[in-house]
Amino acid sequence: MTQPNPDVAIAQAHTLEPITEIALRAEIPPEALVTFGPYKAKVDITRLRGRREAGQLVLVTGMSPTPAGEGKSTVLIGLADALTRRGLNAAAALREPSQGPVMGIKGGATGGGYAQIVPMEDINLHFTGDFHAVAAATNTLAALVDNHVQQGNELRIDARRIVWQRCLDVNDRSLRGVITGLGGTAHGTPRETGFTITAASEIMAVLCLAADLEDLRLRLGRLTVAFTFDGAPVTADDLGATGALAALMKEAINPNLVQTLGGTPAYVHGGPFANIAHGCSSLIATRVALEHADLVLTEAGFGSDLGAEKFFDIKARHGGLDVAGVVVVATIRSLKYHGGDLADGVRNLARHVDNIRQFGATPLVALNLFTTDTPAERSFLRDWARDHGVALAECEVWARGGTGAEQLAEVLLDNLSAGSRPLYDPRHGVEASIATLATQIYHAEKVEYSPQALRDLAVLREHGWDRLPVCISKTQYSFSDDPAALGAPTGHTLHVRELIPRTGAGFIVALTGAVMTMPGLPARPAAEGIDIDAAGKISGLF
Amino acid sequence: MTQPNPDVAIAQAHTLEPITEIALRAEIPPEALVTFGPYKAKVDITRLRGRREAGQLVLVTGMSPTPAGEGKSTVLIGLADALTRRGLNAAAALREPSQGPVMGIKGGATGGGYAQIVPMEDINLHFTGDFHAVAAATNTLAALVDNHVQQGNELRIDARRIVWQRCLDVNDRSLRGVITGLGGTAHGTPRETGFTITAASEIMAVLCLAADLEDLRLRLGRLTVAFTFDGAPVTADDLGATGALAALMKEAINPNLVQTLGGTPAYVHGGPFANIAHGCSSLIATRVALEHADLVLTEAGFGSDLGAEKFFDIKARHGGLDVAGVVVVATIRSLKYHGGDLADGVRNLARHVDNIRQFGATPLVALNLFTTDTPAERSFLRDWARDHGVALAECEVWARGGTGAEQLAEVLLDNLSAGSRPLYDPRHGVEASIATLATQIYHAEKVEYSPQALRDLAVLREHGWDRLPVCISKTQYSFSDDPAALGAPTGHTLHVRELIPRTGAGFIVALTGAVMTMPGLPARPAAEGIDIDAAGKISGLF
Repeated sequence: MTQPNPDVAIAQAHTLEPITEIALRAEIPPEALVTFGPYKAKVDITRLRGRREAGQLVLVTGMSPTPAGEGKSTVLIGLADALTRRGLNAAAALREPSQGPVMGIKGGATGGGYAQIVPMEDINLHFTGDFHAVAAATNTLAALVDNHVQQGNELRIDARRIVWQRCLDVNDRSLRGVITGLGGTAHGTPRETGFTITAASEIMAVLCLAADLEDLRLRLGRLTVAFTFDGAPVTADDLGATGALAALMKEAINPNLVQTLGGTPAYVHGGPFANIAHGCSSLIATRVALEHADLVLTEAGFGSDLGAEKFFDIKARHGGLDVAGVVVVATIRSLKYHGGDLADGVRNLARHVDNIRQFGATPLVALNLFTTDTPAERSFLRDWARDHGVALAECEVWARGGTGAEQLAEVLLDNLSAGSRPLYDPRHGVEASIATLATQIYHAEKVEYSPQALRDLAVLREHGWDRLPVCISKTQYSFSDDPAALGAPTGHTLHVRELIPRTGAGFIVALTGAVMTMPGLPARPAAEGIDIDAAGKISGLF
Repeated sequence: MTQPNPDVAIAQAHTLEPITEIALRAEIPPEALVTFGPYKAKVDITRLRGRREAGQLVLVTGMSPTPAGEGKSTVLIGLADALTRRGLNAAAALREPSQGPVMGIKGGATGGGYAQIVPMEDINLHFTGDFHAVAAATNTLAALVDNHVQQGNELRIDARRIVWQRCLDVNDRSLRGVITGLGGTAHGTPRETGFTITAASEIMAVLCLAADLEDLRLRLGRLTVAFTFDGAPVTADDLGATGALAALMKEAINPNLVQTLGGTPAYVHGGPFANIAHGCSSLIATRVALEHADLVLTEAGFGSDLGAEKFFDIKARHGGLDVAGVVVVATIRSLKYHGGDLADGVRNLARHVDNIRQFGATPLVALNLFTTDTPAERSFLRDWARDHGVALAECEVWARGGTGAEQLAEVLLDNLSAGSRPLYDPRHGVEASIATLATQIYHAEKVEYSPQALRDLAVLREHGWDRLPVCISKTQYSFSDDPAALGAPTGHTLHVRELIPRTGAGFIVALTGAVMTMPGLPARPAAEGIDIDAAGKISGLF
């Protein structure tokens, strides 16, 4: 298990450029660069000047994935390097890996093969501490809530209605449901609660949607942590916690800068999960990238139904971003997974392509090639694209990096357009928003609300929160809320289990199906294969 | 609450030297310096060469403190700056602050007034992420244990005897006693457990006692996490977790370098609590400091009965360190607190002085002056010291920094000696070690073991762990295990509640009295006073 695996071995064999050189190429002024060793840096947003907002933004999404993933980040990185090779001033804006899954089934999230961001070991392990800062703020707030109840409960918090959960960046199923406060009156009030993974904390969403430190502070203050015995919401502001939380996020708010193997500047910042959160890297990083590069590639987690939809309806709406092009990553493996044959499975891809068009954006399919793909399979997809008027390019980024995405870069540059838009108007209410997404994006026939969700709806209305955009938490494996319904299901029912107001982030989370906000570890965790030698060289990271 | 307070205001008004300049003065080779922005760095221990071990080591400890603390770190920093002002190549080696108490009652732990280490905001909040790394490793190991049980339990772990606890760097009394694994078979095995604060995690102790990355990895592998149904210990090695844990600690193992306000290099690394853990900064940092400076000042938490004793018996024994001098910090406030009058209270100080002599080291009392101290009080202590043959110097470090410790520096340099030693021989068994400490250091009459402690003793003997050094977890406010027994109590009983084998750290923790391994927050948490403005300037940190 400890033999070198290709990804970490390729990354370690690569000679990195100093991050100061990358920053020069990225046009980040030296006084705004805060280095973390020779190859990582943060960009101090309070020291950026002379901003321009001229770059074009390209979103990379995918068809519904197989459990192994379709290489979305890998394609993004290879494509960015192909653009850099053409002499363009390109940048990548990606999410930070979550350490829990690195130790679990998934390995790292820094691309693969010859399309990686580096130093991959550092980025996958702690990086510059942003996730830890989110967890520290989340858990400090939780301690302040319980402490308020313990110290006399001046605000009259109903301990049964403390909604703020703790978090950890660990895949730990045992923390999903816990009772805290045991041991007697000196040790708190016993109550049932749970931990989410850090990527699912609302503070992660706040970090990723904030415009600057002031906006971050405002949003942190609006976090709803509990309800009183009278049903009134209690916020971080009410607890006097806002300043401390913002201080804990002081460095985390600054985007991280690293490089791809092809030397493209990569802003890697923020990492909300895409199935259980909004799945987009930070707005601040996207803006910094657009202000300093001509073409910015960013990703949104999983398919058009999850990350891309939230990119348009939450992040781009909020941040006023225009998307000039959307790359939909597909693999022959995934096409087969979604149908008995390719002709059947391609209906999944077709729906993602159609979905992208609903946002006024131009889709481009990137077929991420594997050595097992046959000429017949590849020609099937080329024919399908031609017959359906879909732009398509093959790429071979894992094995060839930027040189494997030259055709993709060319097709992308030929297909840039303007005028993307959100799908629904949240002012029509959260039920209308959910209905629009369910029918137009998921192709469901109807939406069913659980009794809990109906009670939640009443609470949203009572507090005027029902006109916020919606962030649907749903399985990534299907357009429906049933992970086994592959392909392009229709006529199904979307089950809304729970509606959670995220008053800090500024959206309503709708939990559907049985989506977990805390993953578990598999029978053979990836952690078992990770090692480090006496000189500090890490092995076993994927 | 958000007005500038002196400590953070003084620190912010100071012009820091670039850390690269401090490193030059500290004789750290540039290739070993990993900068974290302009004013913080880690020293990559794998890149240090041409080592020497010529520096003399001075330990700073204190008399039994009042709840407000007696300014031990402040005196250390002021003294270091006084030595630097004399042209000596001095360095400070300090513990990292724990973020939980920063948000609680205590504020930061970076000195105060004109005797601070800077940048104090960064050092008090996240710093370079070492505590987060310890928590990540601790909680990853916890997830792997529960996951092993969940996935078939090949090792036959008795879920009732999982001894590995999770941790967080938060003061959160509600996490002292928890039940995890609720919700049905997909969500783990319900069991009662708890969180400690990160400073109390065994991995913090491992970090602080490891010689290098290889030694760290070995110690992590020996961590006992549970017992089987047959009573056999289960280690991190048994779970295949060791490599992943060591990889998570890759950067944390490197000492952090910052500066004092007087420009003295300060190695700030590791932070085990002194009442509930061994309370000394890392051995690696102490060694790096000794290899590069002529005089190194380091601290051990609380009084001679806690930090200093563990410094001699655990850290110095293990690391082969000789202590050339011991500064015992006293205040008039604390002398009064420990007795009806000064003549009564000074008995507490006298005992700390005697204790230090038992370790073969030369004590020197530093009277840390406050503006409220009267000439009569100061002359009382001077007379007492003269009459008892105790070296004493007054200092005024909060208000005057290094210039306020010139006399102290002179007295210290006149009193350096060699030949310090541990107090007991652990090969006589843990009961003998505890008895020696109880009678000779605490002046107890006898030791009583709870039924649980007696059972623990049997387990220690069964596994051959009873010849490890002992780390007694005890209140800092008294020589006894009763925080209300001030002064110099005698004839009392030391109550050993529990004995916990720390097979990774290599010692036995003896819990006495009612010491908590997870603090709580006060009615008015310090967090309420902390804030940050739009430009990133922090206020309200003490």
